Amino acid sequence: MEQNLKPDAVTLTKALAAHLAAARPADLTPAARHAARRGVLDWVGCALAASAHPEIDILVAVLQETGGRPQASVLGRGLKLGLLDAPLANGQMGHLLDFDDTHMGGVVLHTSSPVLAALFALAERKPVSGEALMLAYAVGFEAGVRAGRSAPGHHQGGWHLTGTLGSIAAGAASGRLLGLDAQRMTYALGIAATQAGGMQQNRGTMCKSFHAGKAAQNGVLAALLAERGFDSSQEIIEGKRGFARIYSDVAAPQALTADLGGAWLIETNGHKPHACGVVLHPLIDAVIALRNRARIDPASVDAIELRLHPLVLTITGVTEPTSGLQSKFSLRHSAAVALADGAAGIAQYSDARAADPAIAALRRKVTAVADETLRKDEAHAAIVAGGGRHAVHVAHASGTTDNPMSDAAIEAKFLANATPLIGDARARKAAALAWSLDEVADVRELIALLA
Amino acid sequence: MEQNLKPDAVTLTKALAAHLAAARPADLTPAARHAARRGVLDWVGCALAASAHPEIDILVAVLQETGGRPQASVLGRGLKLGLLDAPLANGQMGHLLDFDDTHMGGVVLHTSSPVLAALFALAERKPVSGEALMLAYAVGFEAGVRAGRSAPGHHQGGWHLTGTLGSIAAGAASGRLLGLDAQRMTYALGIAATQAGGMQQNRGTMCKSFHAGKAAQNGVLAALLAERGFDSSQEIIEGKRGFARIYSDVAAPQALTADLGGAWLIETNGHKPHACGVVLHPLIDAVIALRNRARIDPASVDAIELRLHPLVLTITGVTEPTSGLQSKFSLRHSAAVALADGAAGIAQYSDARAADPAIAALRRKVTAVADETLRKDEAHAAIVAGGGRHAVHVAHASGTTDNPMSDAAIEAKFLANATPLIGDARARKAAALAWSLDEVADVRELIALLA
Repeated sequence: MEQNLKPDAVTLTKALAAHLAAARPADLTPAARHAARRGVLDWVGCALAASAHPEIDILVAVLQETGGRPQASVLGRGLKLGLLDAPLANGQMGHLLDFDDTHMGGVVLHTSSPVLAALFALAERKPVSGEALMLAYAVGFEAGVRAGRSAPGHHQGGWHLTGTLGSIAAGAASGRLLGLDAQRMTYALGIAATQAGGMQQNRGTMCKSFHAGKAAQNGVLAALLAERGFDSSQEIIEGKRGFARIYSDVAAPQALTADLGGAWLIETNGHKPHACGVVLHPLIDAVIALRNRARIDPASVDAIELRLHPLVLTITGVTEPTSGLQSKFSLRHSAAVALADGAAGIAQYSDARAADPAIAALRRKVTAVADETLRKDEAHAAIVAGGGRHAVHVAHASGTTDNPMSDAAIEAKFLANATPLIGDARARKAAALAWSLDEVADVRELIALLA
Repeated sequence: MEQNLKPDAVTLTKALAAHLAAARPADLTPAARHAARRGVLDWVGCALAASAHPEIDILVAVLQETGGRPQASVLGRGLKLGLLDAPLANGQMGHLLDFDDTHMGGVVLHTSSPVLAALFALAERKPVSGEALMLAYAVGFEAGVRAGRSAPGHHQGGWHLTGTLGSIAAGAASGRLLGLDAQRMTYALGIAATQAGGMQQNRGTMCKSFHAGKAAQNGVLAALLAERGFDSSQEIIEGKRGFARIYSDVAAPQALTADLGGAWLIETNGHKPHACGVVLHPLIDAVIALRNRARIDPASVDAIELRLHPLVLTITGVTEPTSGLQSKFSLRHSAAVALADGAAGIAQYSDARAADPAIAALRRKVTAVADETLRKDEAHAAIVAGGGRHAVHVAHASGTTDNPMSDAAIEAKFLANATPLIGDARARKAAALAWSLDEVADVRELIALLA
């Protein structure tokens, strides 16, 4: 236990907190700035695309009843909620379609939904520059990914990292935006981490994206409490009953501060072309490639044969999804829509598409085998049709570090997501602001376009 | 994963939810009713006693800034906060002094701070009878304790059960108060559990009691979302990546529904005469008994020798506490104040008392050895003073099931806690209302006296 720690004791958590509290915009590398611009643009599009979803209607209705003063904007809905409620709504929206960014640096973390939902709310509390937002955003990646690396058994243990690590990331990012000193940043980490939750058991339900919203809310609350001197353990990650020990069967607390001050972790963030988990991207790329190359008529297909990293089968093994949310956890559904539509976007993971008999028929033709020699971003696919067999190998799925989306592709994705909600003119203006985020004096300028 | 579960699948969580949703006030035994009256009275006193504490000032200041409409009362502070914020404040207040009730039925759970903080807020949303409150309160014990029994490695794993099980308990209790059907109660459990958090690492910090407040808030939010159809896993406790599996190294999911419909778990709730963890009660009783029997002058003491259940040394091993909060995790401090003051109440765990040189000198005379043959409610103590050695054995500590506080003692504790905050007349009126809670038509009558 840490109760006997002297206030001046040096701990890993305090060392990380001190580093993050001292970070300045001038410390951001060009690559980190570029990644931050891309991340903001992609995330706000994903949030907008989900803003009219029925489960957001439920959440917003509850928060309107329980909440109070309109303090922070809910994107795409033309309304404001309280400073702790807007992050809950925006965070859930950002993650709802499984279309948001993925960091794969040792952990699989959707950082932006918790972090940017938190920062956007705080940006309406006091004016914040684009550069300050970018720095806090990058700080969130450092805290979240490092906490994850310090608890290597965390995902395998059944946790939804976007909820758990997301709380820590959002707490650190919020703390940086508020300008907390090292001691208060330590507390922000301690208060944020002790609220961390989210079980993989809730995959395929409304709770999955709710975890991202809660993480955002937890982070804002942690930072606001720490700002006023609310305290916590000084070693919430590495302590005997701290995060790395109790959320993971293996602890690697030194990872918390390893290579601190080197490249920013945000630089290796990934963005998704397809509206589903990153593990599904290799097989979707492969099936679309086969479809385009061999001009296969879906009606003529006898079998779709996949060879995949074992994790894909574990995470996305749903055979007969009964809802759009569930279909995001079905590799069979993903292969089926990729073949039928040549796409795996928002439309392909709707309730209607999950129930479509033609897609269901295709799903039943999919077989998948696990191959431990494959990387997670790799897939082999073959389609047997009309007596022929067409095969393809995807070495690096689109959207991953080795095959990233181009800036143009990210902007196109944003415009497709945002235009139906805010119209073409506002969407283009928002994109221009995001690309020049470093020069934006007050982030509310961007938020106003998206609200 | 549970995505393939058919909606009509029978699960343990659904069976528990169906049972709790169907419970009626007429099902409450006289013993359960009696326990509920005692529980309400004791809890509101504990909350009032902590209501002016500095960390509550911080929390309330943040919630006043971020929150909105005054919807639910914060006890003892003459103000209202939002429907999700008041439970956070009242829940933290209830647990802050470690003076609130303890259920030891297989898990050590402070049920009332999360559950009653949630129910009190909802009682200001729509009129609620005393009887309906009592039923929902009892439902909270069933859900929280049963979830704990289904995850037997949970406490040992480093979790603060009042945060984790408290979320589940508060979700179920809130769901019952809202009259959710079995399906929505299942969701309330799923949404509440997936928010569960709280690490033992934060013992001795402001976060410990914050966990109780968060649990209350999580429970209210879960029930309000479920009421409107927000969904979750149907097997959040027993599922492959559910609570019993990922919050515990051992899972015993059958415990969730074992003996369902037998005695109510609230009947075996315990109340504390001393303002600290229940594990400290046996040694405090022992030292006070020796002090009274042998009229020992603290200045003459050479040694205080304790033989205790091993858990006491693990949980309360702080040797030199530097704050009142830390002193609650110090068996040495507890023995020292018990000897010096003949008491271990709120005053004995203040910052001033923790720093008192006379107490510090006594603390250093305490030695404690672990004895695995002892029960948790048992202690041996001896004081060496003036050449003599005085020994005592406490078989069952006060406040435990085998040595419960009397109704009169609970009322006296309540009056001592409440009178400084709300005055004698209101305190006596509140006590009378609590003792006749079954007949109270609208719980707001009680809340108005305490606010």
